[in-house]
Amino acid sequence: MNNKTFDVVGIGSAIVDVIARCDDGFIAANGMDKGFMRLIDAGEAEALYAKMGPGVETSGGSVSNTCAGVASFGGRAAFIGKVAGDQLGGIFAHDIRSIGVHFATAASGDASPTGRCLILVTPEGERTMNTFLGAAAELTVQEIDPTIIAQSKVLYLEGYSFDPPLARAAFYEAARIAMDAGTMVAVSLSDPFCVERHRDAFLDFIGKHADIVFANERELLSLYETEDFEDACARIRASVKLAAVTRSAKGSRILHGDETVEVAAAPVAAVVDTTGAGDLYAAGFLFGYANGRDLAASGRLASLAAAEVISHIGPRPQMSLKLLAEEKA
Amino acid sequence: MNNKTFDVVGIGSAIVDVIARCDDGFIAANGMDKGFMRLIDAGEAEALYAKMGPGVETSGGSVSNTCAGVASFGGRAAFIGKVAGDQLGGIFAHDIRSIGVHFATAASGDASPTGRCLILVTPEGERTMNTFLGAAAELTVQEIDPTIIAQSKVLYLEGYSFDPPLARAAFYEAARIAMDAGTMVAVSLSDPFCVERHRDAFLDFIGKHADIVFANERELLSLYETEDFEDACARIRASVKLAAVTRSAKGSRILHGDETVEVAAAPVAAVVDTTGAGDLYAAGFLFGYANGRDLAASGRLASLAAAEVISHIGPRPQMSLKLLAEEKA
Repeated sequence: MNNKTFDVVGIGSAIVDVIARCDDGFIAANGMDKGFMRLIDAGEAEALYAKMGPGVETSGGSVSNTCAGVASFGGRAAFIGKVAGDQLGGIFAHDIRSIGVHFATAASGDASPTGRCLILVTPEGERTMNTFLGAAAELTVQEIDPTIIAQSKVLYLEGYSFDPPLARAAFYEAARIAMDAGTMVAVSLSDPFCVERHRDAFLDFIGKHADIVFANERELLSLYETEDFEDACARIRASVKLAAVTRSAKGSRILHGDETVEVAAAPVAAVVDTTGAGDLYAAGFLFGYANGRDLAASGRLASLAAAEVISHIGPRPQMSLKLLAEEKA
Repeated sequence: MNNKTFDVVGIGSAIVDVIARCDDGFIAANGMDKGFMRLIDAGEAEALYAKMGPGVETSGGSVSNTCAGVASFGGRAAFIGKVAGDQLGGIFAHDIRSIGVHFATAASGDASPTGRCLILVTPEGERTMNTFLGAAAELTVQEIDPTIIAQSKVLYLEGYSFDPPLARAAFYEAARIAMDAGTMVAVSLSDPFCVERHRDAFLDFIGKHADIVFANERELLSLYETEDFEDACARIRASVKLAAVTRSAKGSRILHGDETVEVAAAPVAAVVDTTGAGDLYAAGFLFGYANGRDLAASGRLASLAAAEVISHIGPRPQMSLKLLAEEKA
């Protein structure tokens, strides 16, 4: 796999995050489930935004955050996803390219604006997400560039892509191309409610197409409809070659055949905003793994990247992860 | 002055900040003077943005930051300034209203997009600003609402308004209305280069119209073309009723007739981004002063607000200054 151009190609929703602080009362009063992601339409987005406090805007999107993280480590990443030709689309395209990710998907000419995620951060740093997909839902099979996928060591997909029908078709097509090209397929379970909406599709996809699964504890428990973490681990271990399960401050567990690697969480002075924690964990892991590090070393890079991103507002690294990794090595 | 509706009405450029980190080499290679503000046109903005790293977007603009700060302290603030009817204009309007500032200036229907400031932050936290005014330059005299000015204790203006001719006319008209209505006039010198461009106009305005002047040390020295800080202080003391001169980590000095109050800088764990430091200093001071605090107490609120804003990326408070002031009281 050393002759490939990219370490990781990601396909997912191209999203700009709008992040505001709030208290628990605001979450409850607006019908959100704290810590989860829900899809909203344009009207709901407008109504919620009108109620939110002042925001900070940054490029987001789960897979695109991961691609940005891989690039920040000095890895070679590409991203495929759809923005509109508006100001937010310009911001998304600028940010992902300027961090060094190859991004060539044409902006949509359609009526939908660039997708956005209204993120409410409660005082302890937990994020609750409200996503208006907009143009992100318009990614089609035609935009899945087979050359880029074939030229990547890993194809990284997000469970969120099961939601919009066009993106879902693109997701499957990309996985098919990857399998034909000897590109590993990695998938993130994304969100416990997303797992619940698409459990059968997830189970089928993991069994048939995935080489690597990223999940947090709640997502994994939801996938197997159990409250028993050890049971869930046993089942994912039996279903996929490699799984990395994150457990917030408890660190993460990597399952690979008979092997189990426990990885400690990296220290964080203060958790400011957990947005992007899972995405950056995946970035560190995939960067390490695609470049020949062993599971424990890949896991340490994953923890390091996650710790950086939860120490500030926003889902992408604010410092070079390459330099950070060198400092901590 | 207790019967007035607003503590502060501000008139200034409505701007969205785009903040990215860079090293000193980038500043030099792109012809910027570190720590200063320069005006750029649409083409220059596009070219510079293409070279910048990933950004964080937040509402900005010097006077609007101050108004947001006054509101965050629980004060009553209004802002007059021009955005376009685009996505960035929507972000600006949302953010200033949602923090509690009255903002009713109609969005421009013209071709210019909402103004933006491309801010490069070097590792020690210093910011260097490149402003494309866009719609912000189109504020006209017609949009200066005399009722709001008359109903405010303080009218707060920025030296930056001397640059665009229409805004400059609006600035003078607002000052005239304020003087007629018994509203105090406060002005910020904004930037040493801005002072240099408009020194005579500044000196004339301060002598004839201003009750309060905010300046940092470099701006004050530029105003009087001296390197002698004590000399510059003596001259501003003789020219205006009240002056507050900020000196970064050295704190600030308030000059009022024969009285001199030295205010210590509030402690900061780490200076992340100095954008907004002067704006939030003015917010704390004006909130305190308009609500009957003495000079020392007003200065302490000013230092507290400045310390909050330099501890994170972005020019507006990320926590309630009201709560912060209560905690530190």
